[in-house]
Amino acid sequence: MSDAPSDESSEDADPREEIMNATYSALGEHGYADLTMQDIADELGKSTSLLHYHFDTKEELLVAFIDHIMAEFREEHAPPEDLPPEERLREFLDLWVFEPDEDERAALHLALLEFRSRGPFNEAYREQLVRSDELLRGTVAEILRDGVESGAFEPVDPESTARMIVATLDGARTRQITLDDPEYTPTIRDELVETVVDPLLADSDDEQDGTNEEADRP
Amino acid sequence: MSDAPSDESSEDADPREEIMNATYSALGEHGYADLTMQDIADELGKSTSLLHYHFDTKEELLVAFIDHIMAEFREEHAPPEDLPPEERLREFLDLWVFEPDEDERAALHLALLEFRSRGPFNEAYREQLVRSDELLRGTVAEILRDGVESGAFEPVDPESTARMIVATLDGARTRQITLDDPEYTPTIRDELVETVVDPLLADSDDEQDGTNEEADRP
Repeated sequence: MSDAPSDESSEDADPREEIMNATYSALGEHGYADLTMQDIADELGKSTSLLHYHFDTKEELLVAFIDHIMAEFREEHAPPEDLPPEERLREFLDLWVFEPDEDERAALHLALLEFRSRGPFNEAYREQLVRSDELLRGTVAEILRDGVESGAFEPVDPESTARMIVATLDGARTRQITLDDPEYTPTIRDELVETVVDPLLADSDDEQDGTNEEADRP
Repeated sequence: MSDAPSDESSEDADPREEIMNATYSALGEHGYADLTMQDIADELGKSTSLLHYHFDTKEELLVAFIDHIMAEFREEHAPPEDLPPEERLREFLDLWVFEPDEDERAALHLALLEFRSRGPFNEAYREQLVRSDELLRGTVAEILRDGVESGAFEPVDPESTARMIVATLDGARTRQITLDDPEYTPTIRDELVETVVDPLLADSDDEQDGTNEEADRP
């Protein structure tokens, strides 16, 4: 990877950011297995030499792409820290729910699933997947830890509960995109709320007969 | 697909069964994306023409292969119906746990993950994946229904609880094989037992503190 070129034509756009956006579109359109540097260059409207100026290989570009979407997740979608832990947890669950018309998002997640299946054969990919997994689990564990410390949540083990929540959402998303069943993530989000989130709430005797809390959600 | 050839040389072996076994080995060795009919024929020690006698295309063979492993799952691994529902449920969860030395099994599940990522692009695959999903969820829902009817379980909704259990195990398995982390399925199996199975048990007041309220849910 090299420094950014000094003669970059458009002053207001970060070329790496533009490459990441083009990769997003190209992955959604072509899938991971069929993706070429040329596809990304075509999306970008530039030559592949620009890509190779920034990334030596497709592998290096894709590792940077996962970094990019994880950073976006953290910056844009991570629940604000000033919300109560319960709301942050509910917001985190909601992030995983696809609406049926989010074709681009489904296509991207499908491409990422193909990418993930390469993990065991590619050390750079695998390390990236492990980092992403730790980031996701860490986000949930931090919310749980805050809730336990403040007394809002029952004293669960933040790490193992976070691991289960992330695995459940991942399984729901994988099944939704591979089965093309738009009901998968919404119904499992609701089930997680009932089975895991509601019982977490301390002093929950008067708060949870039945499932009425999640009716208050947006 | 044609009838079995009458001049089949080995009398005691079902040629389709042998093809399925060879497919299992070839998938574990080559993965889904790189698998060819020749790879399967090589595993079988026969020519590809034998494969084509039974299956017109690789697609048709792979759909039959998923049928085959789902039937095996049902016949060999499904918990015996005379066990109490709680034990059947625990056995079902245990089925998903990989030991670190089960490389062949991990390789097969990785190949199946690649196969699954083709679902949205291939109607025959997608239909097969939907059937497999229904079979898995149906197995769990039946155990839950038996338990609820016999009074062994709290009155949960068998369908939605089954959906969540299967998604969680699927997410755990996917993360175990793509991250190459042998602890994933065992720890999530344990977490599912604590979070979902234990609270299901009727008269569970003395078995758990803090999480039993939600067992009253419909």
